[in-house]
Amino acid sequence: MGLVVQKYGGSSVADADGIKRVARRIVDAKKAGHEVVVVVSAMGDTTDELIELAEQVSPLPAGREFDMLLTAGERISMALLAMAIKSLGHEAQSFTGSQAGVITDSVHNKARIIDVTPGRIRTALDEGNIAIVAGFQGVSQTSKDITTLGRGGSDTTAVALAAALKAEVCEIYTDVDGVFTADPRVVKKARKIDWIAYEDMLELASSGSKVLLDRCVEYARRYNIPIHVRSSFSGLPGTIVSNDNPNEPEGGEMEQAIISGVAHDTSEAKVTVVGVPDKPGEAARIFRAIADAEVNIDMVVQNVSAASTGLTDISFTLPKTEGQKAIDALGRVKEGIGYESLRYDDAIGKISLVGAGMRSNPGVTATFFEALSAAGVNIELISTSEIRISVVTRADDVPEAVRAVHSAFGLDSESDEAVVYGGTGR
Amino acid sequence: MGLVVQKYGGSSVADADGIKRVARRIVDAKKAGHEVVVVVSAMGDTTDELIELAEQVSPLPAGREFDMLLTAGERISMALLAMAIKSLGHEAQSFTGSQAGVITDSVHNKARIIDVTPGRIRTALDEGNIAIVAGFQGVSQTSKDITTLGRGGSDTTAVALAAALKAEVCEIYTDVDGVFTADPRVVKKARKIDWIAYEDMLELASSGSKVLLDRCVEYARRYNIPIHVRSSFSGLPGTIVSNDNPNEPEGGEMEQAIISGVAHDTSEAKVTVVGVPDKPGEAARIFRAIADAEVNIDMVVQNVSAASTGLTDISFTLPKTEGQKAIDALGRVKEGIGYESLRYDDAIGKISLVGAGMRSNPGVTATFFEALSAAGVNIELISTSEIRISVVTRADDVPEAVRAVHSAFGLDSESDEAVVYGGTGR
Repeated sequence: MGLVVQKYGGSSVADADGIKRVARRIVDAKKAGHEVVVVVSAMGDTTDELIELAEQVSPLPAGREFDMLLTAGERISMALLAMAIKSLGHEAQSFTGSQAGVITDSVHNKARIIDVTPGRIRTALDEGNIAIVAGFQGVSQTSKDITTLGRGGSDTTAVALAAALKAEVCEIYTDVDGVFTADPRVVKKARKIDWIAYEDMLELASSGSKVLLDRCVEYARRYNIPIHVRSSFSGLPGTIVSNDNPNEPEGGEMEQAIISGVAHDTSEAKVTVVGVPDKPGEAARIFRAIADAEVNIDMVVQNVSAASTGLTDISFTLPKTEGQKAIDALGRVKEGIGYESLRYDDAIGKISLVGAGMRSNPGVTATFFEALSAAGVNIELISTSEIRISVVTRADDVPEAVRAVHSAFGLDSESDEAVVYGGTGR
Repeated sequence: MGLVVQKYGGSSVADADGIKRVARRIVDAKKAGHEVVVVVSAMGDTTDELIELAEQVSPLPAGREFDMLLTAGERISMALLAMAIKSLGHEAQSFTGSQAGVITDSVHNKARIIDVTPGRIRTALDEGNIAIVAGFQGVSQTSKDITTLGRGGSDTTAVALAAALKAEVCEIYTDVDGVFTADPRVVKKARKIDWIAYEDMLELASSGSKVLLDRCVEYARRYNIPIHVRSSFSGLPGTIVSNDNPNEPEGGEMEQAIISGVAHDTSEAKVTVVGVPDKPGEAARIFRAIADAEVNIDMVVQNVSAASTGLTDISFTLPKTEGQKAIDALGRVKEGIGYESLRYDDAIGKISLVGAGMRSNPGVTATFFEALSAAGVNIELISTSEIRISVVTRADDVPEAVRAVHSAFGLDSESDEAVVYGGTGR
């Protein structure tokens, strides 16, 4: 039996009962003969409460101090979890990110891991301990200050430790049973995916699936660490994210398109730059202005220009929270570029279909658009990649659109026409 | 202007408003030209809430993990305080005990400071920052694990940093105006003491005055760091604890007894070992048994034995929380010692009069006992030191006894017969 890294999110350790339940699960893994390293998030709403306190004392909390504050959350949950395990008769020690050797750059609030030196964890394991590690935090290589890793930071901590300790698997425990073919709150008939390739999971994650963030999947892919996404409430197997489908016979690769799932996202807004002169360099100037303002953008769409005017429109989507910054940045370069006007729209939604073999199966795109049309959903933007088609619609249309597409591709749980889901053989 | 260490307790930073008020006070000290190091406790009831959580997950939380848990409290308050200062336009950085160089032994939950290496604090000050340090915590020299200092730990952190940084003064901010001649909740006419010598403060602290703990005063005395106990709610000067009375003219030492105050304590119990053979070595065996059980005791009283029996009684007081341990330990040695029985009584109280020159002024002891007698208070035990007289009475009698003694020594605030209070010239 090898080394297992388990990660438990805030909803799994929301109260004393949750901590005790998680402790029993950890002890089960230890009893089964594994070396166990556990990464834990802050309890339930702790982080939100700390953020609220920070807002009460300071309108614009400084990054260094904000990180010092937030890391108190995991400190509480990890110490309690270690106590709970010890009261079950097993040895456990808790470690901060810094003690666990999670070395980061110095970008407070969204630091990136640059090295993991888990010497103290290795020693603790060798001495027979279960090691409990604070998720979401590290220590800056240069300033020695405490840092936090930003969104999805605890998952990333778990995968990074799994890679550094050469773990067999990184188990991500959450409050859902795994990765689904669509958000089960929107699509009642959504099915759990048993296995999915890193690439498909990356596209699902960046298209709005909240179960795993792309950052953590990217890290796992680079170090080839299998991720097992599963529920801390049930004992059921969840979703394996890896290179190779463990359930697939060798040589079982298939040519047909294999749809992984339908993701949606209503957290974005759409900006349209109207009346851009259709000549080389104009798009570059627009997106340089956006980049200089440090705004992250998602989809970018430019259509052919109208022959009569020589003008074109460029649209892009971005998180609503970045909207004002983008509008300001573009306003400053209006003269230089000479566009006509800006339109901002935050009542949009994005629906994405993810799966292997799409590009070589034109029928997939057709079926996708037909399903939307039959549901009376108007398409505003389209963007495709090798394994994904995304469209932008009205936000109000999103639930209906997701259900229609999910059903059209035979993903509904009682459907007979199910394509072999959740696998591409890659 | 020199370096000032300020310490703020949990009641001063109980909520966002408290933190902002404290931040303004800190900035005032900085503006006045001081280098400022701030030691802060956990907010309000945070520590109690964390202890309750620990009890919910584990009947007997492990020391190492308990310390990891509790230190989250100061992490929150120090980060918020640094943010609040920065939002006032001043530079501040927060530091954990470990980052601040507070090195301790490895005794979890009540570690002792063995070294302070405040290199990072010195650097932060040199760069113009206000340094905010977590009280109550350190890092073990041998195991590198996080430790906590136990009761009074934050005050001790402040004094230890003041010593290591050669501070001008260590200001201990609290929710009262300073050290009083008696507990103002019991004696309405209690007066604030302007200055008190280390030794008198030590006796007051060990006799039940809760404002400062003896541990922190002992540290300050060893390194000759003046302590200024004052309110974080008012701007008033509080009580200076130091070697030399700053308000006293040179050569102004006096021979008369100078009473510092009256302390009381109802947290102790009394154990009487009845019928001990009055021969050498019996007391030693009793207190060796107590020491082996790691029970801290306070007063010890043995009277002459009754000539008729050759037996004597030995009484001692100890914290009520240690009572059971002491009884168990003495029960185990009953045969060996051959005493008759044990009596345990936790309905007692202790009243202590503290001041210089007592022993050479027999009138002091007489006045003390007369005051108790006039108030109808029966004395059960008596114990004296160079600068203190303590008696044990019924717990119910304590408030009346304290008021009677306070008044008898002219300490009442409107009294005309006031002795020069609060100073011994030492």
